Amino acid sequence: MPTTKKTPKIPAPTIERLALYTRPLEIYQREGIAVISSEALARHCGVNPAQVRKDLAHFGEFGVRGVGYEVSKLLGEIKKILSTDREWNLCIMGLGNLGTALVENQNFRQRGYRFVAAFDSDPAKVGKRLPSGLVIQSVEKLPKLVKQLNIEIGVIATPPRQAQKAAELLFAAGIKAILNFAPIQLRSPECCVVENVDFSVNLENLAYHLANLLEE
Amino acid sequence: MPTTKKTPKIPAPTIERLALYTRPLEIYQREGIAVISSEALARHCGVNPAQVRKDLAHFGEFGVRGVGYEVSKLLGEIKKILSTDREWNLCIMGLGNLGTALVENQNFRQRGYRFVAAFDSDPAKVGKRLPSGLVIQSVEKLPKLVKQLNIEIGVIATPPRQAQKAAELLFAAGIKAILNFAPIQLRSPECCVVENVDFSVNLENLAYHLANLLEE
Repeated sequence: MPTTKKTPKIPAPTIERLALYTRPLEIYQREGIAVISSEALARHCGVNPAQVRKDLAHFGEFGVRGVGYEVSKLLGEIKKILSTDREWNLCIMGLGNLGTALVENQNFRQRGYRFVAAFDSDPAKVGKRLPSGLVIQSVEKLPKLVKQLNIEIGVIATPPRQAQKAAELLFAAGIKAILNFAPIQLRSPECCVVENVDFSVNLENLAYHLANLLEE
Repeated sequence: MPTTKKTPKIPAPTIERLALYTRPLEIYQREGIAVISSEALARHCGVNPAQVRKDLAHFGEFGVRGVGYEVSKLLGEIKKILSTDREWNLCIMGLGNLGTALVENQNFRQRGYRFVAAFDSDPAKVGKRLPSGLVIQSVEKLPKLVKQLNIEIGVIATPPRQAQKAAELLFAAGIKAILNFAPIQLRSPECCVVENVDFSVNLENLAYHLANLLEE
């Protein structure tokens, strides 16, 4: 659920599904399978095949009717569209359990998202070394390090009460994109984009399917 | 991205958006605003208004043309549809940083998702008390505690290599629904439902919007 002030050319739900589509495509590529049908792609991602075809039609002709999509070509094109064919430098705000888990997440690094700095407002945490090798910095160093390390995305994993303050520090330091894990709606300037992560949405989705299973 | 073997009556993407819609509806309800337009609801959730109207049309007539939706009524109906008008008992598998953060998540509890047991295969962790008060249990106690505590949903926060084993223990104990945070595709029996959480999807979505901002 991205909160963008400007309207992108491609609908936001399509963009979210494109990122999902890359997961089975990567598996097929690793296993050396050259072609995937819209039905298989849809099944792996829990969407319907007509939706897959409609989403991919936004980007011209990737598919061959009755056969499917070329896995490598489709994956390459989606990565180009999503700008995931490059690396991004990230910083984390808040090194509690969640923040520490995020910095350690191997999946991020494999996909080109690198945590290059870690900040906490707690003086007791500043100076500690994380398992990844990063040393926790004081938030006062944020503006300098954002420039020095070319940080483009800020990830907020602070307690809810501190999240807006963390966002303001990031924006003031020139960061234009925030991934927010704190369960709070952040106010953001027009020029910036905030994506909220809310695990309870996944739980609600799961509970719905489970309730349906139990009724049968 | 739910992996359900059975086809639910309502499309999965609609169900996911319904959970999103509840977030601004709850804020409006708290602030005493009685009516919300499809445009406002859409803007808060980053989807387009036509999509909101289409999704809500699946469930009969919630709206009044030209006015909007009654906030309390719509929220109540969505919660009934999503089966979030009740409580669910959860257990966590794997008490590393992520697992510990999830058990502490206040948002889960507020929404009726209660962690009632915590399991780890590491003998050094078994017996330790978490900040929430739960004591970490050995996985051997899983079958007994699932029945005793009426656990319905298992949450996996183990390292990727141990996730499939954790899932099999949960299924064998009678659990039919899993929320999986490990970055790995789980094999599951026909009767069960697995929802995968992949933060890097959010990052890709954010990177796309940021790349668009930077081009302007």
